[in-house]
Amino acid sequence: MNKVKTLASDNYAGALPEIIQSIIEANTGHAGSYGGDDFTRKSRELFRHHFGDVADVRFVFNGSGANVLSLSTAVEPFSSILCADCSHLYVDESTSPESFTGCRLIPLQTNSEGKIEIEAIKEKIIRVGDEHHPQARVLSITQPTEYGTLYSLKEIRAISDLLKEHHMFLHMDGARIFNAATALNCTLKALTSEAGVDIVSVGGTKIGMLFGEAVVVFNHQLAKNLKFKHKRAMQLASKNRFIACQFEALLKDKLWYKHAKKANDMAALLHGSIKAIPGITVTKPVQANAVFAIIPKSWTEKLQDNLFFYVWNELTNEVRLMCAFDTDENDIRKFVEAIKVFT
Amino acid sequence: MNKVKTLASDNYAGALPEIIQSIIEANTGHAGSYGGDDFTRKSRELFRHHFGDVADVRFVFNGSGANVLSLSTAVEPFSSILCADCSHLYVDESTSPESFTGCRLIPLQTNSEGKIEIEAIKEKIIRVGDEHHPQARVLSITQPTEYGTLYSLKEIRAISDLLKEHHMFLHMDGARIFNAATALNCTLKALTSEAGVDIVSVGGTKIGMLFGEAVVVFNHQLAKNLKFKHKRAMQLASKNRFIACQFEALLKDKLWYKHAKKANDMAALLHGSIKAIPGITVTKPVQANAVFAIIPKSWTEKLQDNLFFYVWNELTNEVRLMCAFDTDENDIRKFVEAIKVFT
Amino acid sequence: MNKVKTLASDNYAGALPEIIQSIIEANTGHAGSYGGDDFTRKSRELFRHHFGDVADVRFVFNGSGANVLSLSTAVEPFSSILCADCSHLYVDESTSPESFTGCRLIPLQTNSEGKIEIEAIKEKIIRVGDEHHPQARVLSITQPTEYGTLYSLKEIRAISDLLKEHHMFLHMDGARIFNAATALNCTLKALTSEAGVDIVSVGGTKIGMLFGEAVVVFNHQLAKNLKFKHKRAMQLASKNRFIACQFEALLKDKLWYKHAKKANDMAALLHGSIKAIPGITVTKPVQANAVFAIIPKSWTEKLQDNLFFYVWNELTNEVRLMCAFDTDENDIRKFVEAIKVFT
Amino acid sequence: MNKVKTLASDNYAGALPEIIQSIIEANTGHAGSYGGDDFTRKSRELFRHHFGDVADVRFVFNGSGANVLSLSTAVEPFSSILCADCSHLYVDESTSPESFTGCRLIPLQTNSEGKIEIEAIKEKIIRVGDEHHPQARVLSITQPTEYGTLYSLKEIRAISDLLKEHHMFLHMDGARIFNAATALNCTLKALTSEAGVDIVSVGGTKIGMLFGEAVVVFNHQLAKNLKFKHKRAMQLASKNRFIACQFEALLKDKLWYKHAKKANDMAALLHGSIKAIPGITVTKPVQANAVFAIIPKSWTEKLQDNLFFYVWNELTNEVRLMCAFDTDENDIRKFVEAIKVFT
Repeated sequence: MNKVKTLASDNYAGALPEIIQSIIEANTGHAGSYGGDDFTRKSRELFRHHFGDVADVRFVFNGSGANVLSLSTAVEPFSSILCADCSHLYVDESTSPESFTGCRLIPLQTNSEGKIEIEAIKEKIIRVGDEHHPQARVLSITQPTEYGTLYSLKEIRAISDLLKEHHMFLHMDGARIFNAATALNCTLKALTSEAGVDIVSVGGTKIGMLFGEAVVVFNHQLAKNLKFKHKRAMQLASKNRFIACQFEALLKDKLWYKHAKKANDMAALLHGSIKAIPGITVTKPVQANAVFAIIPKSWTEKLQDNLFFYVWNELTNEVRLMCAFDTDENDIRKFVEAIKVFT
Repeated sequence: MNKVKTLASDNYAGALPEIIQSIIEANTGHAGSYGGDDFTRKSRELFRHHFGDVADVRFVFNGSGANVLSLSTAVEPFSSILCADCSHLYVDESTSPESFTGCRLIPLQTNSEGKIEIEAIKEKIIRVGDEHHPQARVLSITQPTEYGTLYSLKEIRAISDLLKEHHMFLHMDGARIFNAATALNCTLKALTSEAGVDIVSVGGTKIGMLFGEAVVVFNHQLAKNLKFKHKRAMQLASKNRFIACQFEALLKDKLWYKHAKKANDMAALLHGSIKAIPGITVTKPVQANAVFAIIPKSWTEKLQDNLFFYVWNELTNEVRLMCAFDTDENDIRKFVEAIKVFT
Repeated sequence: MNKVKTLASDNYAGALPEIIQSIIEANTGHAGSYGGDDFTRKSRELFRHHFGDVADVRFVFNGSGANVLSLSTAVEPFSSILCADCSHLYVDESTSPESFTGCRLIPLQTNSEGKIEIEAIKEKIIRVGDEHHPQARVLSITQPTEYGTLYSLKEIRAISDLLKEHHMFLHMDGARIFNAATALNCTLKALTSEAGVDIVSVGGTKIGMLFGEAVVVFNHQLAKNLKFKHKRAMQLASKNRFIACQFEALLKDKLWYKHAKKANDMAALLHGSIKAIPGITVTKPVQANAVFAIIPKSWTEKLQDNLFFYVWNELTNEVRLMCAFDTDENDIRKFVEAIKVFT
Repeated sequence: MNKVKTLASDNYAGALPEIIQSIIEANTGHAGSYGGDDFTRKSRELFRHHFGDVADVRFVFNGSGANVLSLSTAVEPFSSILCADCSHLYVDESTSPESFTGCRLIPLQTNSEGKIEIEAIKEKIIRVGDEHHPQARVLSITQPTEYGTLYSLKEIRAISDLLKEHHMFLHMDGARIFNAATALNCTLKALTSEAGVDIVSVGGTKIGMLFGEAVVVFNHQLAKNLKFKHKRAMQLASKNRFIACQFEALLKDKLWYKHAKKANDMAALLHGSIKAIPGITVTKPVQANAVFAIIPKSWTEKLQDNLFFYVWNELTNEVRLMCAFDTDENDIRKFVEAIKVFT
């Protein structure tokens, strides 16, 4: 087995040693199935500790499951769900949201940083009370965004306040939430419950779990039937302890911070190393663990051979360089050297 | 962490050491996400090797995901799905089948062994071509059944032949398919593709994986859009290698056989040890890894304290004693001794 | 155009002259669309007058629309819907209920009169609070039943009381509710809101409308989002006045009573005329406008040529003889004479 | 009953006398239910005559039913449906399309005439074969558009050709298709089957039926299971003859032409009468039976008291003046005189 590295995706990275260790330790004797085990109980307590006033938390398998289950807590069958037109939810989860909720996804244009602005939301809260039109019910933001940028706590609060005025709910797709909290230097609580978030998809996979995400519901009304919706979404693991133990490892002693910091720092290092290189234009603020840049088309293939990455926009040749918990200074150096061949 | 054992469920058992080892070995460097990796490729080849003429195979997270994705390959929006009224699909998967397919589940009464008989199927293939009535399109059988009994290869073939006459498809819920193949002393191919099965849910979790099942489609017509339905069902893992590597470990050198045989043998031993005990009536043929028996109600609690198990029928106090790959002779002896206190 | 009559279905009959007249009268000038018109307003008032404490009422196109919209007011996505295994809802509405609600239909065996008994309901209210199992949430009864029999007011109340104990709701499929109220000699209010019904599908078509049914919701909680669910179900007419005016004609001066009585009386006459004929066995109590009887197979075709009817059970040659508002004594005489040829 | 007129909507108008007459004539004796009647047979033949090579045609209740049933013939569960962002389908049919198909609606920006351009379609046919993204499968155009403008036959053919290249289908929402064919002075066949349309929603209500639309499928592959999907969509009328007879009246001797011409002519007259009035800006080409114009806000209320109409865009005070089959020269004169008070 080779030890190839990439800048392709934090999903290309494997699992943290601490995560593997947690699996080994949880693999002892029998444990209640479907969440009726001590690992699940303890892990849920840790979520309550870190995320604040949690009404309910459930573990799911993957990001689509987390997002769709999250949204299903908030919607009525005649609702619409507002989201960024570049969000994973909108462009990378097939028709799961519609299939499972029966609701409309309404794409919002984002600003140059890939963030949804207050005005864009207001434009879509229309025809309230008119049964002919899907009723806007929940907004999903991604933190950090698909472009590696961050909503400030103040921005999140402002969005939440607007939604509350309209009896709407705020969902956060936190596939990389640990990178966000680390970058903003705030607690998970400050980033979510205290900022007015109602439901959050907490990503475990990208920070180094084998698999597994969590749906954390703060709003007590929305949490009411979560366990039923969880099961219906085909997202309840029979050996649930093996998701729970990974989250326990991640949350205990803030293991996540160490690894999120590493990834963020590497993105900063990469950014610093390439921003002044002629021919390269960094296109988005580098705030978490991703760097977006336009590079000459002729460079792409050679560089990908070195450390694979994705072309995000084929027209402009904007590429995404994603740092993971296992990206290290050697990788960055190697990549920058490969660039220098061209310059 | 205690090392408690139970006779509750093969989902209570943890993971096989070989499975953990496969994870450790797969956790090396980066690998393509969402199935674009070598582990997935190799594991799919092993499925083709063991299951015969496979049109497509995809890995999923859990049994509900496997069953619902399997069935979604066969149905039209106006179809009905026939299944045993005691099947996991019917009684333990919430409304996932309806939510995800929009189709009707039609429960069939089973015989005293928990098996669906030909006549019961015929009775439900009605009003063909009548648009007012859901059109029977696929039948799901469970092998071994929820009662630990087995359809013979001849019985499966007869069911498949009947369905083919009516342009219907046969799905097998093989949550414990390895126990079935071991008990029938046949290949996985003989049990599925060669017996006329169109789609099978292959259970990995109960035989000792951390998580993960597979959907194997033999029918080329049904396989056509499997990858799209897979994603839509929220069952595509981003780090897919970590399901693939477990299946690879299981299939390579027929590791499954060793562990399925162990569980089946322990059920036989348990059966032999208790069948003659006064007060106990074994209610179902013991053919795989489960023993069903009626025991005096007054014994239940004490025995559960010893090795936990589930009461299957509260009216008759029929209990289910499920052996897993990690059940051993000591467990059986301990349980039988606990019974003897009462006799 | 011939003036053929049948005993096939009250759907074979056309429309009442008073209904045609109501259409002509409503067809004057412009009127607000989608229910924003005076006909709709007045008609809804009449519903409130006749049905008692109505939380909301909406007009729909057909019986499937009425039933599915009705049930959609009561369910959660993880609910099950209990109904008679011979109900129109279960056997004649394709997969509309599942497609539109995502819920499970649970068929209950009925007694010899086609009615659901208390014990049958109790057997299906199981595993309450268990997220693995669809949660029983609403029961649908048909009044009169598919077999032309009636639940007494006391029986309805007993069913409602049982359901309330379990936080469940009672739906009545009243496709022929006017025949029921006439036969029971009670008000529509007594038959529904006062008997503990939460939602009723009120059938207009079978009593002589061109088309159109109503969904009447008594339970204020369930009525909350009815207008949104109405539109979503594709059951909101643009020229809604043309359903409303028909219901107005039907309810004003109890026009329905006259026509329902006619149909019921003709069924009684038919019953009285054939019950003693050797070779004929009337199989169900004749309580509304249908007669079910087993007749010799050799008679069927000839009799159908005379006045067409449906064979309900091909095994026993049980036939359904359905009287409509336009069935008259001549029709009955003609039919009975045709029988006498055989005896 | 007053005889108020409006310029609000062709749904505000009642029914044509010929339509009422057709109902009276069809209301004779019994007729087979659910489409098993001679009216339905004859009416379907007329559709085949007028629309060309029709694979199947079914009658439905309303426009939402027609559109959603139409689209359901073309989609897979993982498909997306492209449509104008101002289309009725997108903004006025609640979540019916998603609820019933499970698919994504993708809104396309339209040009200044409310029409979808080829480039806008191309931009949304992306990520073909990528299971993560909903797969574009069908495009819906509205003819005439929501803004009363028309696609030329050549434009329709160009759209169809583009779609066929991508194995996609073309749906036409023909809620006002008779106005379109009249304005373009072409046959219904030329406008649909010969122009490359695969499925068309044919609107009966707006041209003067009481209720009722038709789904006409030209593509034989898509027509295959239409009757089952029809029933599932809760759009099959029990007394189907009463939709069929209305369409028969409409199609026989091209009755539709006379009435569509009247409405179109009145729109032209209205346009001619107001276009030069200072303060009024006609905003869209007047090609069928609607006039869109910006008028001073201060005029709105007074004018609405005269002949009610809708403000289409509250920001610009663009209003929609819709002529129906019953709009006459007096109405136009009256409206223009009311305007003249302000000028």
